[in-house]
Amino acid sequence: MPDATPVSDETLEQLKTASTATITSVLRGFGVIHTFMHRVAPLKPGMSMAGRAFTLRYLPMREDLDEPLDNLKDVQRVGIERIEPGDVLVIDARGDTRAGTMGSILATRVYKRGGVGIVTDGAYRDSPAIAEIGIAAYAAGMNAHTNKTVHHPSEIQVPIACGDVAVYPDDIIVGDDEGVVVVPSKLAAETAARAAEMELKEAFITEKILGGASIVGTYPADEKTLAEYEIWKQARKRGTT
Amino acid sequence: MPDATPVSDETLEQLKTASTATITSVLRGFGVIHTFMHRVAPLKPGMSMAGRAFTLRYLPMREDLDEPLDNLKDVQRVGIERIEPGDVLVIDARGDTRAGTMGSILATRVYKRGGVGIVTDGAYRDSPAIAEIGIAAYAAGMNAHTNKTVHHPSEIQVPIACGDVAVYPDDIIVGDDEGVVVVPSKLAAETAARAAEMELKEAFITEKILGGASIVGTYPADEKTLAEYEIWKQARKRGTT
Amino acid sequence: MPDATPVSDETLEQLKTASTATITSVLRGFGVIHTFMHRVAPLKPGMSMAGRAFTLRYLPMREDLDEPLDNLKDVQRVGIERIEPGDVLVIDARGDTRAGTMGSILATRVYKRGGVGIVTDGAYRDSPAIAEIGIAAYAAGMNAHTNKTVHHPSEIQVPIACGDVAVYPDDIIVGDDEGVVVVPSKLAAETAARAAEMELKEAFITEKILGGASIVGTYPADEKTLAEYEIWKQARKRGTT
Amino acid sequence: MPDATPVSDETLEQLKTASTATITSVLRGFGVIHTFMHRVAPLKPGMSMAGRAFTLRYLPMREDLDEPLDNLKDVQRVGIERIEPGDVLVIDARGDTRAGTMGSILATRVYKRGGVGIVTDGAYRDSPAIAEIGIAAYAAGMNAHTNKTVHHPSEIQVPIACGDVAVYPDDIIVGDDEGVVVVPSKLAAETAARAAEMELKEAFITEKILGGASIVGTYPADEKTLAEYEIWKQARKRGTT
Amino acid sequence: MPDATPVSDETLEQLKTASTATITSVLRGFGVIHTFMHRVAPLKPGMSMAGRAFTLRYLPMREDLDEPLDNLKDVQRVGIERIEPGDVLVIDARGDTRAGTMGSILATRVYKRGGVGIVTDGAYRDSPAIAEIGIAAYAAGMNAHTNKTVHHPSEIQVPIACGDVAVYPDDIIVGDDEGVVVVPSKLAAETAARAAEMELKEAFITEKILGGASIVGTYPADEKTLAEYEIWKQARKRGTT
Amino acid sequence: MPDATPVSDETLEQLKTASTATITSVLRGFGVIHTFMHRVAPLKPGMSMAGRAFTLRYLPMREDLDEPLDNLKDVQRVGIERIEPGDVLVIDARGDTRAGTMGSILATRVYKRGGVGIVTDGAYRDSPAIAEIGIAAYAAGMNAHTNKTVHHPSEIQVPIACGDVAVYPDDIIVGDDEGVVVVPSKLAAETAARAAEMELKEAFITEKILGGASIVGTYPADEKTLAEYEIWKQARKRGTT
Repeated sequence: MPDATPVSDETLEQLKTASTATITSVLRGFGVIHTFMHRVAPLKPGMSMAGRAFTLRYLPMREDLDEPLDNLKDVQRVGIERIEPGDVLVIDARGDTRAGTMGSILATRVYKRGGVGIVTDGAYRDSPAIAEIGIAAYAAGMNAHTNKTVHHPSEIQVPIACGDVAVYPDDIIVGDDEGVVVVPSKLAAETAARAAEMELKEAFITEKILGGASIVGTYPADEKTLAEYEIWKQARKRGTT
Repeated sequence: MPDATPVSDETLEQLKTASTATITSVLRGFGVIHTFMHRVAPLKPGMSMAGRAFTLRYLPMREDLDEPLDNLKDVQRVGIERIEPGDVLVIDARGDTRAGTMGSILATRVYKRGGVGIVTDGAYRDSPAIAEIGIAAYAAGMNAHTNKTVHHPSEIQVPIACGDVAVYPDDIIVGDDEGVVVVPSKLAAETAARAAEMELKEAFITEKILGGASIVGTYPADEKTLAEYEIWKQARKRGTT
Repeated sequence: MPDATPVSDETLEQLKTASTATITSVLRGFGVIHTFMHRVAPLKPGMSMAGRAFTLRYLPMREDLDEPLDNLKDVQRVGIERIEPGDVLVIDARGDTRAGTMGSILATRVYKRGGVGIVTDGAYRDSPAIAEIGIAAYAAGMNAHTNKTVHHPSEIQVPIACGDVAVYPDDIIVGDDEGVVVVPSKLAAETAARAAEMELKEAFITEKILGGASIVGTYPADEKTLAEYEIWKQARKRGTT
Repeated sequence: MPDATPVSDETLEQLKTASTATITSVLRGFGVIHTFMHRVAPLKPGMSMAGRAFTLRYLPMREDLDEPLDNLKDVQRVGIERIEPGDVLVIDARGDTRAGTMGSILATRVYKRGGVGIVTDGAYRDSPAIAEIGIAAYAAGMNAHTNKTVHHPSEIQVPIACGDVAVYPDDIIVGDDEGVVVVPSKLAAETAARAAEMELKEAFITEKILGGASIVGTYPADEKTLAEYEIWKQARKRGTT
Repeated sequence: MPDATPVSDETLEQLKTASTATITSVLRGFGVIHTFMHRVAPLKPGMSMAGRAFTLRYLPMREDLDEPLDNLKDVQRVGIERIEPGDVLVIDARGDTRAGTMGSILATRVYKRGGVGIVTDGAYRDSPAIAEIGIAAYAAGMNAHTNKTVHHPSEIQVPIACGDVAVYPDDIIVGDDEGVVVVPSKLAAETAARAAEMELKEAFITEKILGGASIVGTYPADEKTLAEYEIWKQARKRGTT
Repeated sequence: MPDATPVSDETLEQLKTASTATITSVLRGFGVIHTFMHRVAPLKPGMSMAGRAFTLRYLPMREDLDEPLDNLKDVQRVGIERIEPGDVLVIDARGDTRAGTMGSILATRVYKRGGVGIVTDGAYRDSPAIAEIGIAAYAAGMNAHTNKTVHHPSEIQVPIACGDVAVYPDDIIVGDDEGVVVVPSKLAAETAARAAEMELKEAFITEKILGGASIVGTYPADEKTLAEYEIWKQARKRGTT
């Protein structure tokens, strides 16, 4: 289990403004490839988030494990009341969408505790309501069944799998309109910095391409283009001061 | 095959305004669990419906069964002309989305006959046009191929499977932005009543959660919260009179 | 490999305004059935296109094939710089959405070269940005991973499979809000003509159905309805002159 | 629903000795293509059968349909006691292998009633025991759960889907080590005759290929090869008299 | 997490001789339904086992977690050296068969330590060799890739999912030619006793069915059949003394 | 496309006697990971092969491409008559098992031309007969339908995908009871040598494990074990001279 490295609010803010495509590429530059969740999509367009993973693990329901719901013992409920500001609740549902993993009341509570996102490779119930709470929400489906129809809340803050990616507590979870990427906390600050630089460079390259440039020499940038980019970047900096 | 119990328009109206998540939970309270269709979604946001199931069953196409289309014999066509006001046409396509199960002209006819919804665990063709007719429409995909490329219309008004749920003629079919739930007709009135009560209580609980309450004591509600809820409910009643 | 028949801009324009459902039906009338791509959807509503297929084939990545990216040798990059105005880039990703097949900068270059669409049975990365470029874009998913995580660009302008349909260079590729259909170039002109006629007739039939007609006698149209249609069509022609 | 044509025991015997590959090809010659079941395999090598379809249809289990087991009412049980000698019991399980569709005691009863095969696109329970009864048995999996965990026996002797093929009561069902093919009863006699002839010809061709012949001229056979075949066939006939 | 109840060798022996179909039915009688693993099959016919679960959990591989292999730290290796006589190693591979979860050398070590079975919902590598070791082995596939190509060994002796069933350390794992069932340890002794009784009764019923009896009155057994069974059972007991 | 390096018969013989598990590990040592085919299994136990890939590519069937079968033009037929001794025919069927890719007569011809194996990620028809020809045969399924029901033979000797692995003409294809691995020809000789050495070492380690050794120090082997292995190896060499 990787050590959790503290990540500054500034880094989180930078990561939130970067695209998950850029972050995935930056992580690849670090040799960390299996980071973007498969088949996990935003509940509606316009969602974005960056926060620390708070993990919740579901197992398949087994009838001898069933107990009357007790908010002080039920692992899902206990977990929700431990959410800290800046957390992203990430739920391992083994990709099973035959039941929701959470409904709108609990999602609202996550939001009120300061949670900035909820992510599952299962489904939500009350999905239309969850989409309106104001918290970023990502899932593999919608399903009105309550979680215990299919799932048994097993543990919180253990390593999990979500969307075929390993997620550890305090990993940084970043989402945009494309989906969700997992950033190891020890790489977060450097990833944020490189992502900002890469997005700037890609903005310049996009401008060139829109201006009619071939990708040859432009993307990836050769020396001449890099030199132009440096000038453009300086100009831009001055322009913004 | 369950007996069909007559269901009042008022009940249908109540069910239509409840969420499928609430209705699924209420049915679970009756011990009826396998009711929400898997992988069946609205064609576009904002759709809702509640009506009696009119079932249509497709089998895999087999070439020796093919005949020239005859509106007076083709099972799909015959079925459409038997739709009654308030019906929801539910089509068993065995989850196969390699062809449409119906196009916009037939869907328009269902609408004109008073049908309030169409549901399939296959696909529609002309899906963008169907989305604009004014009838609630749910499916597992979009596919421009005509139904007989893959399907053979076999029977109407027999028990079917749709989205991994058993559907019987005259079951009540309710849809919202999350998907579709099947309500046995004999449970419809009681389900509607309980759903209305549950939604009221959950509105109260959501208010509490938005006000900063913990889920402990609130959701599920303990005695103190229930007492507050009763007061809130009385005040609300007075407020609306 | 079928011979490519030149297709006029007028034909392309006609095909673009027809629905893929209509075109699929017309092709079926020619005995050509397997033409509509399965599980390939527009990135956002409102997209449409008609153009010549420019094909790009991906194989599974194999590490001994990896080379430093060279825009003059990389098959994907070379292909993009060969796009001609009116082309639709169609990418065979074997239905694998575990990585993007292309990102927004390359998609922008396709657009700037005059490409009118991009289609893949894999995923895009930067999908939200691609959706805004102004080029029609169809895919089976979104994934931030770069193509070489999973794919190896193998060849351009060879026969490919996309969405379980065979696609040949210079096939005509038509897309609307429902998805993508492949039209053999030798059938394009006749398909466009028949599609226009079929859409006109279906507009008339839809009017009738909206006016309360039964499908019996109307859809398919019997002799009486056909006669009415001819009158309606003449009136409409006069109305537009 | 196709009319059932009586099929002689001699035809059944001929079909049983033909391979399903040959029968599938012969049916294709009649224009009937969708006949071989997908993902349905023999429980163990060496099984073969030919008999009339007796169909059993399962729907998804729904809790309000559950009743105490009553052999005189339960559709599965009633069906089993109606099996006639020469029948093949074919069970539509919607491809769902999460529970068995039948166990060894019921399969033994089918056998004792003269049934010559059981087929399902679901699973069996007690599969190892079923494999030893002496009845041909085909399925998509093995699963120890009893049928009602997942399935509800709905109807007997109605049209069903099995392995993505439509099956009607009294269709002829033929199985070998490759799987199961459905033969419309009206085509059975002619199919049997053609299959016998095709297998004879293919035996001759295989001899030629084993003797070193190219497939060119041999498979398909040209005039010269056909002439040789006629001589070979005559010699063979004499040899067997 | 359920408390582990000690289970006697005699109980294990009884469970091993019962079929998984019988055990699954007995557990259903206790209200425990989700117990039989889906898509997990024996490596070859003739395998059976009953033992205590020793769990190993794999997560998706993530490159920043990779370390040089160290037998004293690697979770898989550490786990194998903790296997006790009578254990069944159960590996949660999230149903992913794109790599083996274990090869023949490690499986041999499990066997030498007294392990009586290995189970995974992923694949093995060296499967043909594993099939010959003498230990019961169950998997969802065969794959020559080493585990770390796809998996990261994460924890031992935690709750896991395997074949869509929850498995806890010290659950009793029983396998036969049909597959694998999970028995909560607190139910093991009673399950073994009831299974033995049920198998005896089903042997009697099978004899009756083979003798030509209808299932009506026989299966389930009515009072008359039960009386006969009691006599048969007594006779049999005497016969074996 | 990688250059084909000539591979000696001795190397092929060595590869054929190594397990695919060993070869996959050796290739991983060269950094080549994606080499073992997913979901491709031997038709029956006891098959093994090593030979040069002769590739055949299928596309989805499209009706306008259909032509009367002509052995001199049909890509599948032409390919079969070009098979050279030592070749393995590898067929890209896009993982689609809804039809066979080849039957027993053609497989017999491949065998008679000196082909040592056939591999597909689709199905065979006449699978039981193919299993008896004497040629190693690997597939993802069995299906009696002829190839053109679903597939169109498109090209020979081009790069293909099979079982999610890229295969190039003249790659070395090795199969055993576990499945099929692809060895780039330039790595074949060195892979064969390393595989032989690795299998010898693993035989020694297995002996140690069977003798009761812990994996710690043994697997992977520490210096002491390696020294023992060297002595064992020398003894073994003397023993075999």
